[in-house]
Amino acid sequence: MSCLFCMLAKGEIHSDIVFEDDEIIAFRDINPQAPHHILVIPRRHIATVNDANSEDAALIGKLTLAAQRVAKDLSVAEDGYRLVMNCNDHGGQTVFHLHLHLLAGRPMHWPPG
Amino acid sequence: MSCLFCMLAKGEIHSDIVFEDDEIIAFRDINPQAPHHILVIPRRHIATVNDANSEDAALIGKLTLAAQRVAKDLSVAEDGYRLVMNCNDHGGQTVFHLHLHLLAGRPMHWPPG
Repeated sequence: MSCLFCMLAKGEIHSDIVFEDDEIIAFRDINPQAPHHILVIPRRHIATVNDANSEDAALIGKLTLAAQRVAKDLSVAEDGYRLVMNCNDHGGQTVFHLHLHLLAGRPMHWPPG
Repeated sequence: MSCLFCMLAKGEIHSDIVFEDDEIIAFRDINPQAPHHILVIPRRHIATVNDANSEDAALIGKLTLAAQRVAKDLSVAEDGYRLVMNCNDHGGQTVFHLHLHLLAGRPMHWPPG
């Protein structure tokens, strides 16, 4: 009914937006796990990675390219960054609107959680 | 010159393949960080996320959809999984042929490394 990220994409909830176009919005995570922690989401509601289908391939790919662009804008692309997408309980997904985490500004460790 | 994952995609190096089509190959990580740890790569050489361009959007998205399919094939999709892509030093990238990690079979922790 009332998806937090849908509301955010519509501007009904404030967020610290770092990039947006007609399909995608990227904003700072309110609980950052790195000096730069951005969430990149499609404006269209897709609950989880499991719910994406072949017609969504380009859109999903654009999330990664948007993250790349944000990393370049933030001047962290060359040092590097980690992109993470969580699906369901074992993945640690907490908001059920598909989103890509961009973490940068520090060396990320292994394993990834 | 001799990219490990290009050689692997050509079958010149053995890997434990779990999925492949004309564009993508998915195989088990030799140093798994979870009960299921799969790497999903494009057959075509793209060194890092920074090197992907807008024409690669669909291909990058297909990596995610291939990971989803593998998760479903392994019966871990409903429990959930984490997808990770590392770029350059801070991301922890060690093989410079773009690849998506699929980690499943245990709860993943936060932060993601």
